[in-house]
Amino acid sequence: MDITNTITSVPGFKVSSVDAGLRKEPSPDLTLIVAEAPCTAAGVFTTNYVKAAPVLYDQERLAANPEGIRAVLINAQVANAVTGQEGLRNARQTAAWTARAIGATADDVLVMSTGVIGIQLPMDKMEPGIAAAAKALRADGWQEAARGIMTTDTKPKIAAVQSDGITILGIAKGAGMMAPHMATMLSAIVTDADISADLLHRALKRAVYHSFNRITVDGDMSTNDTVLLLASGVSDVRIADRTLEPFVKALRAVCEQLAKGIVHDAEGATRFIEIWVTSARSEDDAHQIANTIAISPLVKTAFYGGDANWGRIFMAAGRAGIAFDPARLSLWFGDLQLVDKGMPLAYDETQANALAASKEVKVTLDLGLGGADFVVWTCDLSHEYVTINGHYRT
Amino acid sequence: MDITNTITSVPGFKVSSVDAGLRKEPSPDLTLIVAEAPCTAAGVFTTNYVKAAPVLYDQERLAANPEGIRAVLINAQVANAVTGQEGLRNARQTAAWTARAIGATADDVLVMSTGVIGIQLPMDKMEPGIAAAAKALRADGWQEAARGIMTTDTKPKIAAVQSDGITILGIAKGAGMMAPHMATMLSAIVTDADISADLLHRALKRAVYHSFNRITVDGDMSTNDTVLLLASGVSDVRIADRTLEPFVKALRAVCEQLAKGIVHDAEGATRFIEIWVTSARSEDDAHQIANTIAISPLVKTAFYGGDANWGRIFMAAGRAGIAFDPARLSLWFGDLQLVDKGMPLAYDETQANALAASKEVKVTLDLGLGGADFVVWTCDLSHEYVTINGHYRT
Repeated sequence: MDITNTITSVPGFKVSSVDAGLRKEPSPDLTLIVAEAPCTAAGVFTTNYVKAAPVLYDQERLAANPEGIRAVLINAQVANAVTGQEGLRNARQTAAWTARAIGATADDVLVMSTGVIGIQLPMDKMEPGIAAAAKALRADGWQEAARGIMTTDTKPKIAAVQSDGITILGIAKGAGMMAPHMATMLSAIVTDADISADLLHRALKRAVYHSFNRITVDGDMSTNDTVLLLASGVSDVRIADRTLEPFVKALRAVCEQLAKGIVHDAEGATRFIEIWVTSARSEDDAHQIANTIAISPLVKTAFYGGDANWGRIFMAAGRAGIAFDPARLSLWFGDLQLVDKGMPLAYDETQANALAASKEVKVTLDLGLGGADFVVWTCDLSHEYVTINGHYRT
Repeated sequence: MDITNTITSVPGFKVSSVDAGLRKEPSPDLTLIVAEAPCTAAGVFTTNYVKAAPVLYDQERLAANPEGIRAVLINAQVANAVTGQEGLRNARQTAAWTARAIGATADDVLVMSTGVIGIQLPMDKMEPGIAAAAKALRADGWQEAARGIMTTDTKPKIAAVQSDGITILGIAKGAGMMAPHMATMLSAIVTDADISADLLHRALKRAVYHSFNRITVDGDMSTNDTVLLLASGVSDVRIADRTLEPFVKALRAVCEQLAKGIVHDAEGATRFIEIWVTSARSEDDAHQIANTIAISPLVKTAFYGGDANWGRIFMAAGRAGIAFDPARLSLWFGDLQLVDKGMPLAYDETQANALAASKEVKVTLDLGLGGADFVVWTCDLSHEYVTINGHYRT
């Protein structure tokens, strides 16, 4: 599936990003995506027990109205999390203002927030900001939108494909931090495919399973993580059960590019690390082990130091809570095998360290148990990560 | 329970620590604890699926011979983990050499290792080292022993109590790292109490539950973690079922001091953080949430920065996999309440940041659900942690 940089618009959608004065420094902070006509929509949300108001609001709206969504409003700087009933009222109110500005009803608008936890949305800035965003809407505003939702991201994340007569375009932010800090990943994806809400949800869940759910920066799951997918139907290409596969494939390509983009641009990251766990009894087992390796501070700091310290990978695998036989474990960095069935090989340590010090590192841990594999994408743990997340309001 | 620094020996035991040439720099690296007569013994071990050879060996010995233990041999620099059958043979061989040197049989000797994974013990150095250690045994060598088992520890950890006619003394190492790095916690505890192996094991499990199992530095569990407890019976004070409580209390005091000592001296730590989760439905629930908060990189870096960023504590609690109602959560730093039943209070932010920037920080998260509490002790995540664990063979 070819990802292209030449797609600048998606039939049926307009977008804008304006400076509503939410951030300390002047820069776009309020992004609005509007569909010309009602869309089918699907969402995937954080499983954190502490869910931000926009997450709770969107879950309710998507359950009640999955085929009538007209807009998505995305604000930076304030997460609207741990804000009680007032936070929920504010989420609804911003949806209502958005609806008024575009000629819809509040029920047709979804919202996403990222930023500080425990602070209410600055409603005095939101109302004029929404009005300004509605006036600035245009078909080819996606690059600006991808920038408008950034926090500590250093690069906008945008990905698009055209396939079988439809276009899919997504933007994402992640590994971000707002003073006083909160990492969150948000993604909004639009398509002109004509597809029912049920199929759209199935497609999104599968694409997310193969993309956003395979990345981790530090193991910390936000209160606000949200991926929304809107389908305008403007292409008149109808996606049915039997044509779902190619749609999922295209959607997955967009999600995977966005997800990898988040890891490449993660806070303080100096290396992109791909961790394969193979020959597991089940995908869940492989996922659990790969994820535990990926979030291990000792594994992550070893890669930061360019140290082929594979013992830490064994240690992390062994603490994942999944039973295996250490005497069956084999390990590779790239194509260089370091361990064979539990026994260290006489590999070239200089070569191993060079592999560990690459910009992109591939680790494969084979369990020798079954037929299931899983891959997780992560990054190293650097001084810069500690600086970004340890320094107060800087 | 008063911990005292004036206890220098425990009736029935001798100890030594010698330089066997295992480390790169000259310093004691081989420690030997010997009992004059067979001891009852108990052990608690890592639950990592990748267990080092000394762990597997000790588990087997303790199962077969829990009332005839004569010695514990502890080496630094080499973990003897992921070393296959050769590693197990080497563990047995060092036990046999120790037995020969002290006039016992190999079955009566336990071993502990810490250091590099995937490397065999340097047996040519172990044999003379063991002979030298056996010659250097003396009753009051515990300070040297506590130093001999250190790795990146900056201070020896030793704790002792006298109570009801018995003495309990323990040494521990933790948060350590050997080139090329492996953090491990080891502790050896001896007492002159007269106690059956069954009761000793029950007492140790309870004491460890309240001490070593409540600490975490980075969430990474070693392949070698081991706590061993030997009871010589020399005091002639018999511990029976009805007198187990005071013995557990004394043992727990020793373990708690050693455990807290490990966190205070953890790699790169600048703050000691005590995390209480209260009013949970069960101790397991409270433990899981407290631990998830304690290992969260975003929580740890916020404390490193002295940032009262309590939103991250809510985030971490919510991703622990334990159901709760965010609207019931209340949070304190020390005695300062920041959140009441899900709503942020108008607290003094300067005061909150000062509390977050203390050398010792106490966090209390009340779930408002039930009657169970749990405490976890941890530290912050600093630049120095990344330096220690990221730099190769420096």
